[in-house]
Amino acid sequence: MFSSLKRFLIGRPLKSTELGEQKLNKTKALAILSSDALSSVAYGPEQILIVLMTVGAAAIWYSIPIAVGVLILLLALILSYRQIIFSYPHGGGAYVVSKENLGMLPGLIAGGSLLVDYILTVAVSVSAGTDAITSAFPSLHPYNVLIAIFFVLCITTLNLRGVTESASILAYPVYLFVLALFILIGVGIYHILTGAVASNLHASIGTPVAGISLFLLLKAFASGSSALTGVEAISNAIPNFKHSAPHNAAKTLAAMGTLLALLFSGIVFLAFYYGIVPAAEVTVVSQIAEQTFGRHFMYFFIQGTTALILILAANTGYSAFPLLAVNLAKDKFIPRMFTIRGDRLGYSNGIIILGLLSIVLIIAFEGKTEHLIPLYAVGVFIPFTLSQTGMVVKWIRQKPAGWFPKLIINTTGALISLIVSLMFFFTKFTQVWPILIFLPLIIFLFHRIKQHYEAVGDQLRLASCEPAVPIEGNVIIVPVAGLTHVVENSLNYAKSLSPHQIIAVHIPFERDEEALFEEKWAKWQPDVRLVTLHSPYRSIINPLTKFIDTVQRKAGESNYQVTVIIPQFIPKKGWHNILHNQSSLLIRAHLLYRRNVIVTTVPYHLTK
Amino acid sequence: MFSSLKRFLIGRPLKSTELGEQKLNKTKALAILSSDALSSVAYGPEQILIVLMTVGAAAIWYSIPIAVGVLILLLALILSYRQIIFSYPHGGGAYVVSKENLGMLPGLIAGGSLLVDYILTVAVSVSAGTDAITSAFPSLHPYNVLIAIFFVLCITTLNLRGVTESASILAYPVYLFVLALFILIGVGIYHILTGAVASNLHASIGTPVAGISLFLLLKAFASGSSALTGVEAISNAIPNFKHSAPHNAAKTLAAMGTLLALLFSGIVFLAFYYGIVPAAEVTVVSQIAEQTFGRHFMYFFIQGTTALILILAANTGYSAFPLLAVNLAKDKFIPRMFTIRGDRLGYSNGIIILGLLSIVLIIAFEGKTEHLIPLYAVGVFIPFTLSQTGMVVKWIRQKPAGWFPKLIINTTGALISLIVSLMFFFTKFTQVWPILIFLPLIIFLFHRIKQHYEAVGDQLRLASCEPAVPIEGNVIIVPVAGLTHVVENSLNYAKSLSPHQIIAVHIPFERDEEALFEEKWAKWQPDVRLVTLHSPYRSIINPLTKFIDTVQRKAGESNYQVTVIIPQFIPKKGWHNILHNQSSLLIRAHLLYRRNVIVTTVPYHLTK
Repeated sequence: MFSSLKRFLIGRPLKSTELGEQKLNKTKALAILSSDALSSVAYGPEQILIVLMTVGAAAIWYSIPIAVGVLILLLALILSYRQIIFSYPHGGGAYVVSKENLGMLPGLIAGGSLLVDYILTVAVSVSAGTDAITSAFPSLHPYNVLIAIFFVLCITTLNLRGVTESASILAYPVYLFVLALFILIGVGIYHILTGAVASNLHASIGTPVAGISLFLLLKAFASGSSALTGVEAISNAIPNFKHSAPHNAAKTLAAMGTLLALLFSGIVFLAFYYGIVPAAEVTVVSQIAEQTFGRHFMYFFIQGTTALILILAANTGYSAFPLLAVNLAKDKFIPRMFTIRGDRLGYSNGIIILGLLSIVLIIAFEGKTEHLIPLYAVGVFIPFTLSQTGMVVKWIRQKPAGWFPKLIINTTGALISLIVSLMFFFTKFTQVWPILIFLPLIIFLFHRIKQHYEAVGDQLRLASCEPAVPIEGNVIIVPVAGLTHVVENSLNYAKSLSPHQIIAVHIPFERDEEALFEEKWAKWQPDVRLVTLHSPYRSIINPLTKFIDTVQRKAGESNYQVTVIIPQFIPKKGWHNILHNQSSLLIRAHLLYRRNVIVTTVPYHLTK
Repeated sequence: MFSSLKRFLIGRPLKSTELGEQKLNKTKALAILSSDALSSVAYGPEQILIVLMTVGAAAIWYSIPIAVGVLILLLALILSYRQIIFSYPHGGGAYVVSKENLGMLPGLIAGGSLLVDYILTVAVSVSAGTDAITSAFPSLHPYNVLIAIFFVLCITTLNLRGVTESASILAYPVYLFVLALFILIGVGIYHILTGAVASNLHASIGTPVAGISLFLLLKAFASGSSALTGVEAISNAIPNFKHSAPHNAAKTLAAMGTLLALLFSGIVFLAFYYGIVPAAEVTVVSQIAEQTFGRHFMYFFIQGTTALILILAANTGYSAFPLLAVNLAKDKFIPRMFTIRGDRLGYSNGIIILGLLSIVLIIAFEGKTEHLIPLYAVGVFIPFTLSQTGMVVKWIRQKPAGWFPKLIINTTGALISLIVSLMFFFTKFTQVWPILIFLPLIIFLFHRIKQHYEAVGDQLRLASCEPAVPIEGNVIIVPVAGLTHVVENSLNYAKSLSPHQIIAVHIPFERDEEALFEEKWAKWQPDVRLVTLHSPYRSIINPLTKFIDTVQRKAGESNYQVTVIIPQFIPKKGWHNILHNQSSLLIRAHLLYRRNVIVTTVPYHLTK
């Protein structure tokens, strides 16, 4: 039943050789990889205005120069990531770039913060999208958490089906959102040009404002740069592109940068010209849309596509997290299971873990994850800084043809990213401090895991020790609970292996049971030796273990091996198992893990 | 770590022979088994007044004749259960009595409703007690559910420690509660006798009231009889008493009945004389206490002991549920695990399941379980009716000396119980209908479980079929993932069992891996045959199972047995397991449960 449900939700398994067909073309890649970056336009400009408003509405004009700053940062990031794409065509993004150029520790800092960041991406985006929906339909508000979890489950299922199929579904909303915002910006500018909007709604650029400070402007700039989260997604996902991947990825990156720049400037400009003041209940985009169209069809179209793209932005995490996890797992920093492709060739374990952890975050924060945004942004800008610093080091070391302009680009990018990161720590420390705790913790874990894998590898390698002493013979111990077919079956098997070295062990809880059992046994199996171990504390494992230890010590002297044969009857239906004491499972686990005993289970299948 | 925590909470294990020392003397038994019944005094009288108030305050005087009715019912129940105690000294109460005299189905109806009822006892009592506490300290109100769960966990732990020890702890609050109520009733009557209470607060007995009907009076009577829930606890728990159990139990029952009658009449009388009207926020007992003492020390003492006894009433469920479960499990109607005594000789599984299920109820109803009270009461009166009808049948059948008065007692009890049960269905159907669904469901489950156990017994019994064909030899299959010490270890073991019938199986996911592995293998283990099974869908279990099926078919022709030896390395620390793919566990479960293959696990312990 489980497997047919799985088939229905996930689809039929794919052969390993079908991998090529799952690759992305540019149109789909733009949709699947840029929803995170593009959706940031829905909250980025607002973050700038919120900071400026702490001085007064007159300061709003500063949003224009700040937006120019953000655009420069965007340009630097796009150019820098373009260079990364061509230098590292196998993907891995900040982790690989930092690791190769700066060393293991910076690599792990970048990888660790991105790994956590993708979980935040999913939780924050889905929650924000859910808020957008429940703002439109307030009666749904009490079910915020449930709705968000439902969306996470949907996206997880889509991703388990495989990359291309999810892209087909995801492409439409992203392009609809872009279309909606272009119509909004176009109509808005048309209104302004035709004079339909009063030109005195805003203070003119350059008006002096009391109380403005460089600190405040930098804070606004840092806040606005949260619109750039998600820019790195493409460089991490190059292996998902069709041939030739780097060229296709670079073109997609350029397209995404252009779209992001246009939408961002358009929204900032309209907000400035309309003199919009951020409000607690209504988003800036919603205010612009309402002033441009009124509460008509286009307004709901814009709000709807905004909500949709926010939810789909979570999908960026699903594309990037498993690939980053594979890179970390190949380097043995996280469990190996992340490298296994599922039935549909996606890295299912990464997808499932990401879904689960983001659901945990959503539940823990009751769907109110907005104050995770600064944490999320700083977790993006730390790897930005590291990867671009890595590129700077690379150019200086390798000095290829035309390296100087490249160096300038990456240096600019690295410096601005560093400033933005530091700004977050200076201006929003109360919200970003957790990164100072979990980042060292994650890196410590990474190292412990790698240590373990290396220790295991050393111990398994054949060269590491002399060949084992050959086994001379076998002693077989069969714990028996009663005189039944199950026991008979196991004894027959034991006799076929080692006819003269079988010990049956019975463990009665009551003294009077003991003699009776021995008597019956002598009649039934006269040729098999029976040992009874009275257990006053009603434990089976303790007396059995002690007995096995004794036998093992003796057997070891003559290179005999001890095997415990556990008779187990298998009920016909799964639910029957709860009706039977699972002592055989406990005994087996105890003997295997606590002792060095070989355990054989002889099944006896019941037929009704 | 888990086991030392367990030791700390539960105590050292006890020998089976220490069972006698855990028996209860009368004083402790009265405390441990009557908290449920006595605590009912805190809400029983109020239930009568609530029904009468629907007609008007003038109808309150009817509480006196109704209380007399309840006392008669109490007397009938006490006398009847006294007879049950002597007739059935091994306990089991309603289940055993109904089963033996009326047949299996009535027995299961009684047993099933009591089983569910004990869970309700725990949930309802603990929630009510928590409410009493959070009413006194309103700032704790938001944590109602957490507090209730905490209490359930405490009581569960106490019961896992063992019956006597919990009784010592529980004895004080019960006696304090009785003391507190006696002081309240005594001082109240003293005030009345000395004329300190105005005699015109109540309508005099016999005043005609418009709108009163027999239906209403019966409804009030049924509601008031919820004060009698818990009376059956002693008759279920006779095996817990010291020698001679029946006599001690009968004396304890009489003491409990007397206390209950005195407290119940006292409260009803004071409520009537003070002219108390039930209020939503303040309980009737609280109102009486306030009018008698004012809000002084004695008021808080009464409220405190009331809260405490309500929480401890849950303990009655813990005494009765495991014993009833043992009786049902011995008759094979519920899983056998309920018959196993834990380290401290309590029936731990019953105790733990009871605790878990009541926590589930508390969470599901968010601690507001008050409207479960009618359901709870009807679930008590159905077994009351059945067990007393059973006694009626017993007297008529056996006709021992002096049977006629006994018959009269049990007939009266049976009739009144039946009327009370029916009254609940007529007057409170909206709250008691679930019993009509879960009772048939439980009885269906009981039968399915019994069917299964009998089928298993039939199949295991040695007489049931001819002896198995002896095994002529063994074919051993060893799945190998690589050339490691773990595999070497398993191959050595396989060679010691059956040197010439070993097949190593390797399952590569990629074609090019295949040839390379075969080449290496030929050099390393030239005398062990290697089979490679290419798996394009990256599944290990499917190709392996198919191969084993083929081998098994061939081996079966010459009575050879197939054994699969799984090489497994055991990491040094438990948490390491999540770093390794647990495919060996999956393979083992699949082969044992889906196929009839013997599976041997050869452990290879890592040392670092």
